[in-house]
Amino acid sequence: MDPISALAEKLMRLPGIGPRQARRIAYALLALGPAVSRELALAITRLGDETAQCERCYRFFPASAQAKQALCSECSDTGRDASIVLIVERDTDLDAIRKSGTYEGRFFVLGGNIPILESDPAKKIRIKELLAEVTRAAREDGLHEIIIATSANEEGEYTAQYVTKTLEPTTLPAQIVITSLGRGLSTGAELEYADKETLRNALKNRG
Amino acid sequence: MDPISALAEKLMRLPGIGPRQARRIAYALLALGPAVSRELALAITRLGDETAQCERCYRFFPASAQAKQALCSECSDTGRDASIVLIVERDTDLDAIRKSGTYEGRFFVLGGNIPILESDPAKKIRIKELLAEVTRAAREDGLHEIIIATSANEEGEYTAQYVTKTLEPTTLPAQIVITSLGRGLSTGAELEYADKETLRNALKNRG
Amino acid sequence: MDPISALAEKLMRLPGIGPRQARRIAYALLALGPAVSRELALAITRLGDETAQCERCYRFFPASAQAKQALCSECSDTGRDASIVLIVERDTDLDAIRKSGTYEGRFFVLGGNIPILESDPAKKIRIKELLAEVTRAAREDGLHEIIIATSANEEGEYTAQYVTKTLEPTTLPAQIVITSLGRGLSTGAELEYADKETLRNALKNRG
Amino acid sequence: MDPISALAEKLMRLPGIGPRQARRIAYALLALGPAVSRELALAITRLGDETAQCERCYRFFPASAQAKQALCSECSDTGRDASIVLIVERDTDLDAIRKSGTYEGRFFVLGGNIPILESDPAKKIRIKELLAEVTRAAREDGLHEIIIATSANEEGEYTAQYVTKTLEPTTLPAQIVITSLGRGLSTGAELEYADKETLRNALKNRG
Repeated sequence: MDPISALAEKLMRLPGIGPRQARRIAYALLALGPAVSRELALAITRLGDETAQCERCYRFFPASAQAKQALCSECSDTGRDASIVLIVERDTDLDAIRKSGTYEGRFFVLGGNIPILESDPAKKIRIKELLAEVTRAAREDGLHEIIIATSANEEGEYTAQYVTKTLEPTTLPAQIVITSLGRGLSTGAELEYADKETLRNALKNRG
Repeated sequence: MDPISALAEKLMRLPGIGPRQARRIAYALLALGPAVSRELALAITRLGDETAQCERCYRFFPASAQAKQALCSECSDTGRDASIVLIVERDTDLDAIRKSGTYEGRFFVLGGNIPILESDPAKKIRIKELLAEVTRAAREDGLHEIIIATSANEEGEYTAQYVTKTLEPTTLPAQIVITSLGRGLSTGAELEYADKETLRNALKNRG
Repeated sequence: MDPISALAEKLMRLPGIGPRQARRIAYALLALGPAVSRELALAITRLGDETAQCERCYRFFPASAQAKQALCSECSDTGRDASIVLIVERDTDLDAIRKSGTYEGRFFVLGGNIPILESDPAKKIRIKELLAEVTRAAREDGLHEIIIATSANEEGEYTAQYVTKTLEPTTLPAQIVITSLGRGLSTGAELEYADKETLRNALKNRG
Repeated sequence: MDPISALAEKLMRLPGIGPRQARRIAYALLALGPAVSRELALAITRLGDETAQCERCYRFFPASAQAKQALCSECSDTGRDASIVLIVERDTDLDAIRKSGTYEGRFFVLGGNIPILESDPAKKIRIKELLAEVTRAAREDGLHEIIIATSANEEGEYTAQYVTKTLEPTTLPAQIVITSLGRGLSTGAELEYADKETLRNALKNRG
């Protein structure tokens, strides 16, 4: 395959890049010249070298190549509330919550969600790792609340149900509560266009 | 003006109809034939004749031409909880809440909202009528909660603030609480794209 | 049915109005007051009374109620070139061409187009009327060109083929040419996103 | 800067990648594992090594690292019609025309277009290179037509005017005609929504 198509094909594996944009990117790299390509290739190579995956929450975080830490800054920060863990689908969700500055507990990244008709849900998310971390946190950190913060769509709801069902044998005897994010009107929502479920929750959560 | 342009101009006063669609509608009426036009004109004429505006909640409701009732079915239904009133911007919002089947109290229709830079807010919504109805309901119906259910956008928030500020001199001494709809993730919302405010509320309203 | 739903149902028969907008329009009419409704109903009633359908091109045109002319201003304008007729799907297409000020011949309005899988094409467009008009114009007006100006989409192309096939037994012996609108880049089109057919035509029609 | 943000920043220089997608891509690369990152970095590095820029048409084309050819396959293909050159803004436009299989002449890639208010147009496109190539082709290849195939938008039209004006002192005495792509209805276009210019061209180019 020619090098332009070869690069385009690899770019198409990345989220949100279609065949047309992939080729435009390849040509743009050629037009921008070898220095830009070199820098980009270097940044991609460095990404793996200078990043580690946290042994507890499984997020990717910056870590020097020499001394690869095992724990991310949130998991090793004793100032954060270790009695709560918030479960998200992806690293980008975790970033969004961190940036909102409204949460002071621990995190856990599932690494994806479970499609409705998935026959082997355990393969789609880090459920074994989650169970191990919950067990450890219950014993060592006094864990008392698990917030399931999956998306408010079909896959997110299904994932939340699966996670809840899998965790309950561990959380119920340990009196750990499982909660989920509040539903209601998102910023910008107009009443007229809100679905029944959203209106019900908006009324229930009024205050 | 020719009759097609004349009709198009009147249609353009209606919500969501632009100049192009207005002409398409005019031609469609011609193509559909005089019977359809007659029926439509009749339905428009009947609308006013067979509808009344409730003296309490100001919604429009079906009412026979002879005996025009003063109160809509919700306001005259003694089975509904008269101690709560839910304030919406428009009749269509009221319809949405009614259809959701999750609310059993009274309503009030403001008739619009207040743009951010409006110099005379009182002209944009039925604020005097609302104050009168709240006063009446406090005295006669044991009103104890007012739910402000304006949209979760700028105008809606501004309207909610204005309504709250205007009602408080009446509600505070009467110990009537003013609440607003719960904010959080709307159905379909993805965490990564949620704004800070929505995330904060979703965390606060978790459960 | 209540008068609001009854009006909404009638409005939903019109092009581009869905159930939600239909109700918003009904409530808007109530809010705007009886004078506006009366004016709108009157404009709808007048539309039929003050409009006629041209006996030749079948477009709807303004015509006084007393003396209903048979021919529209274009068909009765002897200044226009009667040797060319341009066939469009709808009255709004005719308006678009008239407004562009780039055509000086006659028109014919098909009244729609033919869906690909239609079993009875003759029911969807005024094909008999077209054949009669072409025959008349060939005899009386020296017709020598028919421009088929249907849309550049599947239905439009299919309609053009059907019209051509139906007219040819009449036009071939009379040496009337059938043409169609030029294809190429529409204003705003970017080369990269143009389909093969458009590029081929753009190259062919270069100049 | 942390390696995730560093990569995201570089990705944002590429066409069509915004800040959010840039981070999603970075995390996706981490999740896909080091082998995928390595392959992508390699494909980017190879892109420059295995590609050359044609000395005549300035397109980028696959070329072995050892023997870097000076001419692309189109420019060295004696089977193609060297008497016509088609000028495009970008490599992706050239690809689109090649794929359409409807053009058998030579190409020239301008490398961009000229914004309306640009004070130094010569900096935005390869105008000197074009002039040199036209001069060469007039002398050596019997060039007799230049097709300006810029986009049908403001920048494209302005670029076409600038190119025409710059080439004319060379092309007029040499009797080389400058043409541009045909305008008309693009595939999918509906008459009602076509602008005046498109309708005018569609009528002119009918056939």
